[in-house]
Amino acid sequence: MIKITLPDGSIKEFESAVTPLDVAKSISEGLARNVISALVNGTQVENTTQMTTDSTVQLLTWNDDLGKKAFWHSSAHLLAQAIMEFYPEAKLTIGPAIEQGFYYDVDFGDEVLSEKDFEKIEKKMLENAKKNATFSIYPVSKADALKEYADNPYKTELITNLNDGEITFCTHENFTDLCRGGHIPATGIVKAVKILNAAGAYWRGDEKNKQLTRVYAISFPKQKDLTEYLELLEEAKRRDHRKLGRELGIYAFSEKVGAGLPLWLPKGTALRKKLEEFLSAAQKKSGYEFVMTPHIGSKELYVTSGHWDKYGADSFQPIKTPNEGEEFMLKPMNCPHHCEIYKVGQWSYRDLPKRFAEFGTVYRYEQSGELHGLTRVRGFTQDDAHIFCTPDQLMSEFENVIDLTLYVFKSLGFEDFVTQVSLRDPENKEKYIGSDENWKKAEDAIVQAAIKKGLNYVVEYGEAAFYGPKLDFMVKDALGRKWQLGTIQVDYNLPERFDLWYTGSDGEKHRPVMIHRAPFGSMERFIAILLENTAGDFPLWLAPDQFTILPISEKYLDYAKKVSQLLENHDICGIVDERNEKTGRKIRDAEMNKLPFMLIVGENEELNGTISVRRRGEGDLGEMSVEDFITYFKKEAKISN
Amino acid sequence: MIKITLPDGSIKEFESAVTPLDVAKSISEGLARNVISALVNGTQVENTTQMTTDSTVQLLTWNDDLGKKAFWHSSAHLLAQAIMEFYPEAKLTIGPAIEQGFYYDVDFGDEVLSEKDFEKIEKKMLENAKKNATFSIYPVSKADALKEYADNPYKTELITNLNDGEITFCTHENFTDLCRGGHIPATGIVKAVKILNAAGAYWRGDEKNKQLTRVYAISFPKQKDLTEYLELLEEAKRRDHRKLGRELGIYAFSEKVGAGLPLWLPKGTALRKKLEEFLSAAQKKSGYEFVMTPHIGSKELYVTSGHWDKYGADSFQPIKTPNEGEEFMLKPMNCPHHCEIYKVGQWSYRDLPKRFAEFGTVYRYEQSGELHGLTRVRGFTQDDAHIFCTPDQLMSEFENVIDLTLYVFKSLGFEDFVTQVSLRDPENKEKYIGSDENWKKAEDAIVQAAIKKGLNYVVEYGEAAFYGPKLDFMVKDALGRKWQLGTIQVDYNLPERFDLWYTGSDGEKHRPVMIHRAPFGSMERFIAILLENTAGDFPLWLAPDQFTILPISEKYLDYAKKVSQLLENHDICGIVDERNEKTGRKIRDAEMNKLPFMLIVGENEELNGTISVRRRGEGDLGEMSVEDFITYFKKEAKISN
Repeated sequence: MIKITLPDGSIKEFESAVTPLDVAKSISEGLARNVISALVNGTQVENTTQMTTDSTVQLLTWNDDLGKKAFWHSSAHLLAQAIMEFYPEAKLTIGPAIEQGFYYDVDFGDEVLSEKDFEKIEKKMLENAKKNATFSIYPVSKADALKEYADNPYKTELITNLNDGEITFCTHENFTDLCRGGHIPATGIVKAVKILNAAGAYWRGDEKNKQLTRVYAISFPKQKDLTEYLELLEEAKRRDHRKLGRELGIYAFSEKVGAGLPLWLPKGTALRKKLEEFLSAAQKKSGYEFVMTPHIGSKELYVTSGHWDKYGADSFQPIKTPNEGEEFMLKPMNCPHHCEIYKVGQWSYRDLPKRFAEFGTVYRYEQSGELHGLTRVRGFTQDDAHIFCTPDQLMSEFENVIDLTLYVFKSLGFEDFVTQVSLRDPENKEKYIGSDENWKKAEDAIVQAAIKKGLNYVVEYGEAAFYGPKLDFMVKDALGRKWQLGTIQVDYNLPERFDLWYTGSDGEKHRPVMIHRAPFGSMERFIAILLENTAGDFPLWLAPDQFTILPISEKYLDYAKKVSQLLENHDICGIVDERNEKTGRKIRDAEMNKLPFMLIVGENEELNGTISVRRRGEGDLGEMSVEDFITYFKKEAKISN
Repeated sequence: MIKITLPDGSIKEFESAVTPLDVAKSISEGLARNVISALVNGTQVENTTQMTTDSTVQLLTWNDDLGKKAFWHSSAHLLAQAIMEFYPEAKLTIGPAIEQGFYYDVDFGDEVLSEKDFEKIEKKMLENAKKNATFSIYPVSKADALKEYADNPYKTELITNLNDGEITFCTHENFTDLCRGGHIPATGIVKAVKILNAAGAYWRGDEKNKQLTRVYAISFPKQKDLTEYLELLEEAKRRDHRKLGRELGIYAFSEKVGAGLPLWLPKGTALRKKLEEFLSAAQKKSGYEFVMTPHIGSKELYVTSGHWDKYGADSFQPIKTPNEGEEFMLKPMNCPHHCEIYKVGQWSYRDLPKRFAEFGTVYRYEQSGELHGLTRVRGFTQDDAHIFCTPDQLMSEFENVIDLTLYVFKSLGFEDFVTQVSLRDPENKEKYIGSDENWKKAEDAIVQAAIKKGLNYVVEYGEAAFYGPKLDFMVKDALGRKWQLGTIQVDYNLPERFDLWYTGSDGEKHRPVMIHRAPFGSMERFIAILLENTAGDFPLWLAPDQFTILPISEKYLDYAKKVSQLLENHDICGIVDERNEKTGRKIRDAEMNKLPFMLIVGENEELNGTISVRRRGEGDLGEMSVEDFITYFKKEAKISN
C-alpha cells in the first residue's frame, strides 16, 4: 500500500505505484484534465512520474505558479527545438522558466536574430507543439553525456560539474536536451507563443565570458491569455516610469554625471519634497526624531559595522586623501552613522525607545548593465530610521511601525499588499547571532504584531537575516505586478559591534535592540512605482502641477498671472499656459498632461475676480471666486486616511 | 615743490621733502599726535619716512585697520626682542600682524613655552616699550644679511629668496630683525600687551617641515582697550558655537565617522530644517525652482568643468569601481550638476532666466589641522542656486538676489553688514575669460544694482574671479566680528565649457550667463555664526524647543503631555520637564537652557483646561487657554520682515 498525503493533510491509499495523474483521477476527472505537473516530496516532476513509496503530493495546474513554471520550462524545449531546426550550427546553453515566461541563452555564432526571425520561430514552435509529443526523461552516464555534447563547450561545462548518476536527458519528438525534468504531459497544450526580445547576455553572467543571445519568450494554454498578456505589456510600456519620468519632467540622467545617478528636475523635486514632507509629518507624530549625517564615513566605521568585510570588494572603492593616511567610503547604509549618534548620548531605559529618522542618501555600486530607471540606481535616498529599544519594547515598536506603514500605503492608494515574516531556520540556529531568548522574543513580537494588526502574512523559515528576523511589505500595482517596498528588521548585531548600551532599571548596562525600517524603501524606487501605478495621474495633493491657467487671449495674461501668484501663496502649485493656442486645444493638452485643474480666464472672470474651473475627468465646475476655489481645492487635496 | 594728494582728493604743496608727520602737522596738532603710520603711494611706511616726489598719502591712526597693523607689527618686534632676551638660543622666523593682534613663529629647540612664561615675556615687553625707542629701517646687502643670520636656517631661507637691493633690517633699541617696514613712531605708545596662546605651526605651513611654536599676542595703546578686548574674548568663548553646539545638542563629531564630518543631532536637525524651509519658501517666491543632484559625479564631469585640473590633486581622490573603468568624484561644487540639468531642456530667451536651487551637500578635503567646529568642515551644505540668464537680465537678477539676501539677513537679526564688489584688474584684462563687452555689462550691472539697493559697498579692483565679477556679503555679529557669508558671482566660463545655449529672439544660438549665489554660504557655517551671534538665544520661530511644560507634580504629567501633543499638532515644538524637581528649579534651568516659554500646569490649569505662561526674560504672562496661547504664539513667532 502506498500512502499519498495531499496539501490539506488528507491521505489517499493506493495498492501499487501511482502517478500524480492517477491521484488526480481518483479525485475528479475535471482535475485530472487540468493537472499539468506535480510537486512530489518537494521536487517538481511530470504528472506521469511513478511514485513507488509513501509521498506527499501537490497537484499543479496552470493556475499555480509552479504549474506555469512546468508549462514554460516545457515551452523552452519547444523554443530550443525550433531554433535548432533553423540554426543547426547554434549552440544551446541553458533555458529556464522565469517569473513571466522563459528564455534560452544561445550561442548563434555570427548570426544575429531579428524580429523577422521571431515570427518564423514562433510558427515552427506551434507547428511542433501541435504534434502533441510527450516529454520522456531518462538517465545518461557522464561519459555518454559528454560525448553527446562534444561540440558544445557550454553543455560540456555544465555536465562536467555534475556527478555521474545525476545526469538526465529529456526527449520530445526529435529533440533532446540536458534536463532535470518538471514538464507538462505533452506539447499540445501549448496553444500560443510569443518571442518577446533577444538581448545580449554573458555565459554564466560573467562579462569575461562570451556574449550569448538571450531569447525571451512566453507561452499560454489559450490564445486569449496571450492577447491579454500583450495588452498588459503595452499598458506597462505606457506606464513605464522611464517614459513618464521623461515626459512629465520628473528626472533625467546625464552621461557626464554618470549612469544610475538621477538628476531630479524641478517637477520631480517638487513631487519628492511633498512625499518627504508627508512622511516627515507622519513620523514626527509617531515619535521619531530627525537627524542628518554625512554621505561618507571613515573606512574604520564600516570595518566596525562589518560592511567592509562583507561588501567592501564589490562596492565603490575607498576615497583616499592627499596627505594624511585616512580613507573614506561612500555610505552604503545609514545605520552605522545612526549608531554613532546613539553613542553621543548616555541613555537610561526611561529614555528608550530612541527613534532616529533620516532621508539618507546612500551609494551602492551596481554594474552598469544592471541599472534600470529609478528602480535600480547607484545612489538613492532611503526613508530610513533606526529604533533603539529594550527587548520588551519590540512588540509595541513593531505595531507602531506597521501602523505607520499602513497609513503611508493607504494615503498613496496602495490598497493591495501582502507581507512576509522571515524567521530563523529552526534547524540551523547556529547560523544566527543573538541569544535564543532574544530571538524568541523578537520572532514572537513580529508575529503577534502582524496578527494584531490583521496583516495578510506568510511565514518563511530560514529567510531571516543572520542578525535578526524581519517583516517585508510587497504591494501590488494597478497592473497586478508585485513590488517589494517597505521593510522592518530586527538587529542584534550592530548594537554588539558598536558596543551600544543603556542603563536598565537594575542600574546595570544592557544592550538595546535595533530596528531598521523604511516604509517606502527608497524615494527613487517608490516614485518609480508610484509613476507606474498612477500612470502619472497623481493624487491631487501630490501633483507637481495642480492647475494650469488658460487665458482665452493675450489680453488676460496679466490677470492669469495674478491668479497664479495668489494660488502659489496658498501653496497651490501650477502654471500659466501662455501659448498662442485656442482654448480647446489648451484644454486637450492639459488633460493629456494630467493637470488636475484647468482655470479659464477671460473678460468676465477678470471683471468679476473669478475663474472658470474645469476638473480633469469631471469637466466644467462653473465660475467661482479665487477664494472659493482655494477652499474647495484644500478640501479636495486633503490626504485621505 | 612736492604735491601731496590726500584721500579726499585735496592737494597740499610742500617746498621740500616731507614726512607724513609733517603733512599731519600741517593739518592739525591733534592729528599729528595720533598719526602712527601712513600709506604712501599704496605702500605702508613709517610716519617719519621722507617723501621727495609728488605722492598720495593716507595718514593712519589706531582707528584705521592699517594703523592697527603698524601697531601690531611693531609689537611683534617687541615680542621677538623679549623672547631673545629669555631664550638666546631660539631661532626667529616670521612674525606678522594679523586681524586681531600678531604672532611670531619661533624655533625654541627643545624648550616648551608655558602660560607661566607668558607673564614674564609680557612684563619684559612693556619694560622695553617704556624706553620709547624708535624703529630705524635700513638696507642691507644680501651677503651681509646672510652673514648676520648664518646660524638661523629660516631667515637664511627667507633672505635667499629675496633679491639684493630689496633687503632691509629694522633696529629698535638693542634688537634687529629682517623687516620690510611699516612701524609706529616709537615703542612707547604700546601700553598693554597680552600673550594669548602658543600653538604648533609648521615652517611655511608645510607639515613635512619642522614644527615651530606660534606665539599669539595682542597689544593696545591703553590698558582699558586690553581689558575690554579680554572681556570680549571671554564672551566669545562663552558663545563659541562648539561649546553651545554641544550644550544645546545641535551637532557632534565622531572619530569613527571622521573629523570634519558633522552629525546633526535631533535639535540641530530641527533648527536646520526650519532654516531650510524658511529659505525654500523665500526662494520659491523669488522664482527659483528646486532640483536635487547626487553627491558624486564622474571624473569626466570635473574635467569638463575645469575643477579636476585646478583642484584634483588637493581634493578627496577619485572613487574607483570594482570592474568597470569608471571613476567618480565626491562633488566639491553643485554647479557642474546644475549645468547638466540645464542641458536636459532646450531653452529660448523667453524661458530665461532659469533659476535652479538646491541645498546641495558638497565635500572638500581640508587638512585635519585646519578643521574648526562647523566653520571649517569637510562636508557642508550650500544653499546654492545657479541662475542662467541673458546678459541683459543680469542687472535685474542681481537686484532680485540682493533683495533675497537682505530679506534673509534681516529675518535672522543680522542688521549690520558690508558688501564688497570685486571687479577685474583693468590693467590685466587678459587674465579674464569673456568679452570686454560682457564684462562691462556684468560689472555695470553689479555696481548699479548695489547702488539701487542702497548697499554700503567697497569696490576692489583685481579681486574678481577669472570667470566673472562678484559681490560678497560680510555680516558683523553681536561681538563686532566680521564673517563672510553670502556671495553672488557672475560666470562666463562654465556656460562655455558645458556648451550651454539658448535660442535668442534672432533665432540664433547664444550663450547664457550664469550666476552662482548662496545667501547663507553654507548651512554649517551659517548655523555656527547664528549660534555665536545669538549665544543660542534663537529667534522664537527658529528655536528647536519653543516651550517646556512644567507639571507642578507628577499628578499633572498626563495633562502636561496632552497639552504638549496639542501644541505639537500646531507645529509648536517643545518638551515636558518630567524631572522630580521643584518648579522654581525647573524654571531656572529652562531660563538657562534658553527655552522661550515655560508652561506651568497644576490642579487649576487641568480643571480649567489652561496653562500658566512664563516667557523667558519677561516673566509671568498669566493663565490662558491653550487655544489663546497658540494664537499668541503664532503672532509672536512670525518672521519679521
